[in-house]
Amino acid sequence: MTEHVTIREVALRDGLQIEAPIPLSAKLQLLEAIAATGVREVEACAFVSPSKVPSMADAAELAAQLRRFPDIEFSALVASPNGAKRAMAARLPAIEYVVAASDAFSRANVGRTSTEATEQIGEIATIAHDAGATIEVIIATAWDCPFDGPTPPQRVLDIAVTACEHGVDRISIADTIGTTTPGRVTSLIAALRQVTGTTILGAHFHNTRGAGLANAYAAVGAGITRLDSSVGGLGGCPFAPGATGNIATEDLVYLLTDSGIEVDVDLNAAIAAANVARSAVGHDLPGALLRAGDRKRN
Amino acid sequence: MTEHVTIREVALRDGLQIEAPIPLSAKLQLLEAIAATGVREVEACAFVSPSKVPSMADAAELAAQLRRFPDIEFSALVASPNGAKRAMAARLPAIEYVVAASDAFSRANVGRTSTEATEQIGEIATIAHDAGATIEVIIATAWDCPFDGPTPPQRVLDIAVTACEHGVDRISIADTIGTTTPGRVTSLIAALRQVTGTTILGAHFHNTRGAGLANAYAAVGAGITRLDSSVGGLGGCPFAPGATGNIATEDLVYLLTDSGIEVDVDLNAAIAAANVARSAVGHDLPGALLRAGDRKRN
Repeated sequence: MTEHVTIREVALRDGLQIEAPIPLSAKLQLLEAIAATGVREVEACAFVSPSKVPSMADAAELAAQLRRFPDIEFSALVASPNGAKRAMAARLPAIEYVVAASDAFSRANVGRTSTEATEQIGEIATIAHDAGATIEVIIATAWDCPFDGPTPPQRVLDIAVTACEHGVDRISIADTIGTTTPGRVTSLIAALRQVTGTTILGAHFHNTRGAGLANAYAAVGAGITRLDSSVGGLGGCPFAPGATGNIATEDLVYLLTDSGIEVDVDLNAAIAAANVARSAVGHDLPGALLRAGDRKRN
Repeated sequence: MTEHVTIREVALRDGLQIEAPIPLSAKLQLLEAIAATGVREVEACAFVSPSKVPSMADAAELAAQLRRFPDIEFSALVASPNGAKRAMAARLPAIEYVVAASDAFSRANVGRTSTEATEQIGEIATIAHDAGATIEVIIATAWDCPFDGPTPPQRVLDIAVTACEHGVDRISIADTIGTTTPGRVTSLIAALRQVTGTTILGAHFHNTRGAGLANAYAAVGAGITRLDSSVGGLGGCPFAPGATGNIATEDLVYLLTDSGIEVDVDLNAAIAAANVARSAVGHDLPGALLRAGDRKRN
């Protein structure tokens, strides 16, 4: 079993994406709390259409503040070459390009088929690398699509192979709608590792059906060393009203460290950051340790 | 990996235990819904002090109705020889005797030390076997005690060995306050299997810190084939106000079946039973599939 897992905090992007926009000052306050957890990687924003995702409209303004946190590697999500250029203009050191593995989700999300989105990997990788940034490909709907049903694993592998051919720095697989379970997590990661060589792999889970942490632990058991999570479990899914969002950072930290796996994130600071996130969005969040707290340690 | 897991439905006992008492008619309505799931084992009630646990005061009345469900094996929880005798008088075919592995919890729960409670296993096993019933020992606070902190694994093994010496039919380990995690689950079960021979083993998890399903899957990976769960996740813990309760039957069914492990319980019937449970107690329940539903299957 892996001895150390790198957690990427995604509350500021995936967590806030479908929330009503909050002021930049509130984002910075949340970022201060996140930085206090010791986390080394933070997904800060998305350079996407401000009209489609109003909560990310201030991406450039937020990016201008990130130099205040020199110990954190920040990344931004993009969905097109134009978004990648905007991210580079804002001097982000890392971008994530999302490619949905299912056509229906890809069309709904970015107006292109999965194949068309895959064909842009090379152009976006070049934009990132020419600017000295790293590029990660996030394969969305890697297990299931809300419209097309189960995703053929081969489709995920094909995208991963294309990404590797274009020299991307990392590949992540995302359970976008929170439907996968440990058995399928283990088998897809095993297949993925066969085709991705030494490319760094990560995984991104939602807790929509309660299996998020079980999936994360299964992914670590299958050799994954990078996991995304969001303080408080901030971040619902627009396709499952009322469902919970990302796996909660504090719950993930508790589970991994108690199981003997090191992380960079301090548990109590993560709970404190989850409270800041709750105040920022003005509603309750699903994270379990937000309610139950750490166990009593004698 | 195990191909089949037997789920025991515990909503009627562990689920309702700390709720305000509900009418017998409401319990029977919930039981009808639970029976419709196809589940083969149900923890129906507890023969304990009615003044301490008022929600279980109607145990004998409920027991008198159980013959209406001939396809289900019912069990009752007891905490003393007297309780075992009451259960036998009520013609229960199976009893569970709880022994807490930590002294402070045992004293708070039953007014005896863990050793004193362990010493009663033989007497209670005899009461059960003389009446033709089976006896299971549930080792509570198997990982952590809310007062004493972490439980030494050897204490759990000692209780298990004593239980085996007295010929009990089953042994379960319970994460009473919902604090354990997959790493500790795996290691305790591995140790337990070394000392319990062919005795049937089960596990009981709470989702208080979000790790319940991850623990359940880890337990199955470690060779456990019997898991307790509660429709809707009914059943909070009095020591963690606001915390969620048992792992939810419908979430467990979803996770196991989607991972290729068979269970006796139908998913949609379990979601329906969770809705009945929610109505019976008059408040929301934490089960994830209660909100998100099954995934779309094409």
